[in-house]
Amino acid sequence: MRPIVDFLLHDWLNVDTLAQRERFADHSRETFAQVLDTCERIAREKYAPFNRLVDTQEPAFDGEKVHLPQATHDAWAAYAGSGMLAAAQDYEIGGMQLPYAVEAAANAFFAKASASIGAGMLTSGNANLLMAHGTALQQQVFAHNEFSGRWAGTMCLSEPQAGSSLSDIATRAEPDGADFQDDPLGPRYRLRGNKMWISAGEHELTENIVHLVLAKIPGPDGQLVPGVKGISLFIVPKKLVDTTGRLTGERNDVALAGLNHKCGWRGTTNTLLNFGEGKYPVRGGAGAIGYRVGAPGEGLRCMFHMMNEARIAIGLSAAMLGMAGYEAALAYARQRPQGRPVGEGGKDASKPQSLLMAHADIKRMLLAQKAYAEGALALCLYCARLVDEKHTGTPEASAEAALLLEVLTPIAKSWPSEWCLEGNSLAIQVHGGYGYTRDFPVEQYWRDQRLNMIHEGTHGIQALDLLGRKVVMQGGAGLKLLAERISDTLARAGQDEQLATYVPALGGAVQRLGAATKAAWSTGVPEEALANATPYLQAFGHVVLAWVWLELGLAARAAAPASDAERARNAGLLSALRFFHVYELPKIDAWLGVVSSREAVCREMQDAWF
Amino acid sequence: MRPIVDFLLHDWLNVDTLAQRERFADHSRETFAQVLDTCERIAREKYAPFNRLVDTQEPAFDGEKVHLPQATHDAWAAYAGSGMLAAAQDYEIGGMQLPYAVEAAANAFFAKASASIGAGMLTSGNANLLMAHGTALQQQVFAHNEFSGRWAGTMCLSEPQAGSSLSDIATRAEPDGADFQDDPLGPRYRLRGNKMWISAGEHELTENIVHLVLAKIPGPDGQLVPGVKGISLFIVPKKLVDTTGRLTGERNDVALAGLNHKCGWRGTTNTLLNFGEGKYPVRGGAGAIGYRVGAPGEGLRCMFHMMNEARIAIGLSAAMLGMAGYEAALAYARQRPQGRPVGEGGKDASKPQSLLMAHADIKRMLLAQKAYAEGALALCLYCARLVDEKHTGTPEASAEAALLLEVLTPIAKSWPSEWCLEGNSLAIQVHGGYGYTRDFPVEQYWRDQRLNMIHEGTHGIQALDLLGRKVVMQGGAGLKLLAERISDTLARAGQDEQLATYVPALGGAVQRLGAATKAAWSTGVPEEALANATPYLQAFGHVVLAWVWLELGLAARAAAPASDAERARNAGLLSALRFFHVYELPKIDAWLGVVSSREAVCREMQDAWF
Repeated sequence: MRPIVDFLLHDWLNVDTLAQRERFADHSRETFAQVLDTCERIAREKYAPFNRLVDTQEPAFDGEKVHLPQATHDAWAAYAGSGMLAAAQDYEIGGMQLPYAVEAAANAFFAKASASIGAGMLTSGNANLLMAHGTALQQQVFAHNEFSGRWAGTMCLSEPQAGSSLSDIATRAEPDGADFQDDPLGPRYRLRGNKMWISAGEHELTENIVHLVLAKIPGPDGQLVPGVKGISLFIVPKKLVDTTGRLTGERNDVALAGLNHKCGWRGTTNTLLNFGEGKYPVRGGAGAIGYRVGAPGEGLRCMFHMMNEARIAIGLSAAMLGMAGYEAALAYARQRPQGRPVGEGGKDASKPQSLLMAHADIKRMLLAQKAYAEGALALCLYCARLVDEKHTGTPEASAEAALLLEVLTPIAKSWPSEWCLEGNSLAIQVHGGYGYTRDFPVEQYWRDQRLNMIHEGTHGIQALDLLGRKVVMQGGAGLKLLAERISDTLARAGQDEQLATYVPALGGAVQRLGAATKAAWSTGVPEEALANATPYLQAFGHVVLAWVWLELGLAARAAAPASDAERARNAGLLSALRFFHVYELPKIDAWLGVVSSREAVCREMQDAWF
Repeated sequence: MRPIVDFLLHDWLNVDTLAQRERFADHSRETFAQVLDTCERIAREKYAPFNRLVDTQEPAFDGEKVHLPQATHDAWAAYAGSGMLAAAQDYEIGGMQLPYAVEAAANAFFAKASASIGAGMLTSGNANLLMAHGTALQQQVFAHNEFSGRWAGTMCLSEPQAGSSLSDIATRAEPDGADFQDDPLGPRYRLRGNKMWISAGEHELTENIVHLVLAKIPGPDGQLVPGVKGISLFIVPKKLVDTTGRLTGERNDVALAGLNHKCGWRGTTNTLLNFGEGKYPVRGGAGAIGYRVGAPGEGLRCMFHMMNEARIAIGLSAAMLGMAGYEAALAYARQRPQGRPVGEGGKDASKPQSLLMAHADIKRMLLAQKAYAEGALALCLYCARLVDEKHTGTPEASAEAALLLEVLTPIAKSWPSEWCLEGNSLAIQVHGGYGYTRDFPVEQYWRDQRLNMIHEGTHGIQALDLLGRKVVMQGGAGLKLLAERISDTLARAGQDEQLATYVPALGGAVQRLGAATKAAWSTGVPEEALANATPYLQAFGHVVLAWVWLELGLAARAAAPASDAERARNAGLLSALRFFHVYELPKIDAWLGVVSSREAVCREMQDAWF
């Protein structure tokens, strides 16, 4: 995978040029390479060998503690030791001041080696949020101890009765005594409620766990405010700490109510947590102690600060499972003899068997996996590069990057989740019966992958976000900007004799996508427009990926090959581009058809008719 | 599911009319209903409650015996007790003389309750084959004891080095002594070789196991004949028997070399078997003792005798996993509150949450599952009805049915396997995070389903069979016949004011399918035509299903509803028809595009470019 990562970062995204910016001035292609080298090595040594182990040795709860395999402890230690938890942070607090594009690429190696053994993303995401919204002391006490790997972090959003529907959360946070405002760690509350699907919610990997919890502060009437407006954000440490970050010896009232036993992704503990139900009474009061972050009612806004990056990270993880399956299928196809290809006397059974690789249908399945996985990786790194632009670009470039990110983030989350699942299924198919056994890794990749369309906003939620909000916000400015970027690519491709052939179809696809967007909203009735949000998301994603692949084709054409390996890489990229445009892009019309006609059969379907 | 089964059998396929034929003269709608009632009850009581159990308690080998849960023994006993093993056989040998369409429908209840707990299909398929190709004594000794459930059967085709490529099998069968021709049980051979992926290859469910084994008889030079021409078929019992069917007390040299540990379908033991490797030396010679069935070199022809029915059975099993997922998702959507639907103030969080069922995207996922699962069931029962026509129709009708079966069998095998897998994935998605846990059944359905695109001929093999053989055989007579059947349906639909709307699109699709078939073969070069056999299979399948759904629409329109339930059933069928034609049928053009242009990017892809 390293060659494609280097190609994307340097030949396409030109991340070296970021070193011209003040924040990244100490960096260079060499420092970036060192980070990638280190992460690739740790992933190879501490993650990959234990990926099947964590699938078979699920987290176990003995009533008091959650037990994880030693390999998971070692992986955490190695990851924390790499400094990646603080990759984006300032040098002065021990960070690396790494561009997000490089951080994301470096994390990709871990995700490919084992999707679920590490939960570093949650910890750094948690701490990054505190750096944006916490007080100086909250940053120092909580975030800094997460960056060092001494403590881990979680995000506690969902509840058993409220998954996608966050406005319905019922966890209550009430001021803890008359002096609740005066706690140096932040306004102090008592929380009571249940949180579901909490990854890394309980373990012994670290000395402490910093839960970031969404909860509602009751109004003067004691009632919770309906909807998302009433939601605030709280730091709820598993064990209480003082202002220097020392454990006070008090266990906070956060209790594991149960482990979720999943189809895959078993290396990461997933929990139901009870807050303030009295299992660990603390400081003579009822409820788990939490410290508010940000203003009351601003909880979701604070959480959404991290949402783009979290969603890109999910997309990247999905891309990496796709890549892992692709690499496994490729290796298998290169060594497994089976049958003889069609044609040229190929059926002559007196000849030795051919390798799987000789069969056109096997190559079709491998090309599809390549197009899905490498395309997904490219999209996610492109989005990561936009995050850098948003944070360090000129005001104009920053605003453009932010707008483009709004539109592309639902795609970066959803497209890899859907299509690399298909890729993982094809990886099984390439292996035949062997792929269905647990002697080969591909069935686990497929099971692990299935989570990605569900967590961090389901496919349906991404679709509503895209068609209901992102493409209509600011008068459709985001979609317009994306269309401009694609037009620019088409203009460049039109000048290239080998790539010009792809211009008409993609140009037409962008037009039809725009027309379908208008048609969906032409009656102005949300339930009519949004009944087909998911097919819209699918079509939108395929158009974006066709554009990404054309971009990669241009970059390959521009990168003069210095070796046979680079020549082969370029030929492979151009073949995957062709595959995507010829086999995949034409799929959009079936999806756009129902969007444009505002097809009503689904929304009009009656319960009794099923 | 019973209402849709009854609708398909009676309102659509008119199976009652089969009772007018001599073979089925003792049957009636009532006797058919009794069989369905019995099977539905046994499946509910003996299969469904243990489906998760057999997933978690995999078969275990102690070095001598394979241990299965008690529930698997009970399920076998109940199935054998139902008489279904001999459903198709003559009354005089204890059979039911049941039409295959009814037998298939009855077996569907077991497949839905637990795909893998029972392996009855293998035993009856094995015995049915012997009834067609075995000697009278082979039938009496082996087949009859399988029909009664006293013994079980297997099919041993694949080998570790030869999965899809049967011409490469290397199991040898050599005449056992000078008198080998004189054994009353059939010409006696000694077999040596390894057989892989053998379902139910070892267990203690029955007193004996009858293996049907493909092997090659060496030529005079001691060499195996390359290709499929050298393959013969042998009965290799686990324990030797005399001509009365009594066990002689001798263990045959068939040894379990290992159990395959699979991603799903864990209720059925899947094995690697060693034949004649000396673990159980028998009668002072080397090799497992086997009795030839049919003439030398006729092994594959005998095996393929059963192939249509076996492939329809796989399709039916896939349809039933789809149905099980659909029913689970439907039940969940009807009771789970989550959020509020878009529009009409639906986002007002002060109102109670709506059921999942209220959301258009949930209904889209349910409708898709309904269209896939019920459509797949309909297709398989249609094919089963063709089997009856082939066996008991007029000579002309029989020939037509046989021809249509040739073309439709690859679809009946592949389409349910592919699309009910998608349906099972949607069933998980409807459940959200809960669907990804092992507390709900849908993740197991999805894992179990993944096998169906692999066994009994992979997707790619079905595609080559369809485009390489079935649509070109007899000058394309099969495709022409199918097109005539579809034309007939279109003519009838054109007369129906509500269904006429679907006629132009399906008519056009059939034309484009025909044109693509011609274009694929226009250069006469197999490797050009067949490089896109899989997209062709996919497009062909969707056209067939669009036709099936239009047929079901016509049947629903013709079936005057006698109750609210039947009115709702008809409305549901017409909605699923609409869903399939509007959301699914348009997908064919992306697939047919590459077929028609004989797109070469896959077959021209070089190993080094990946």
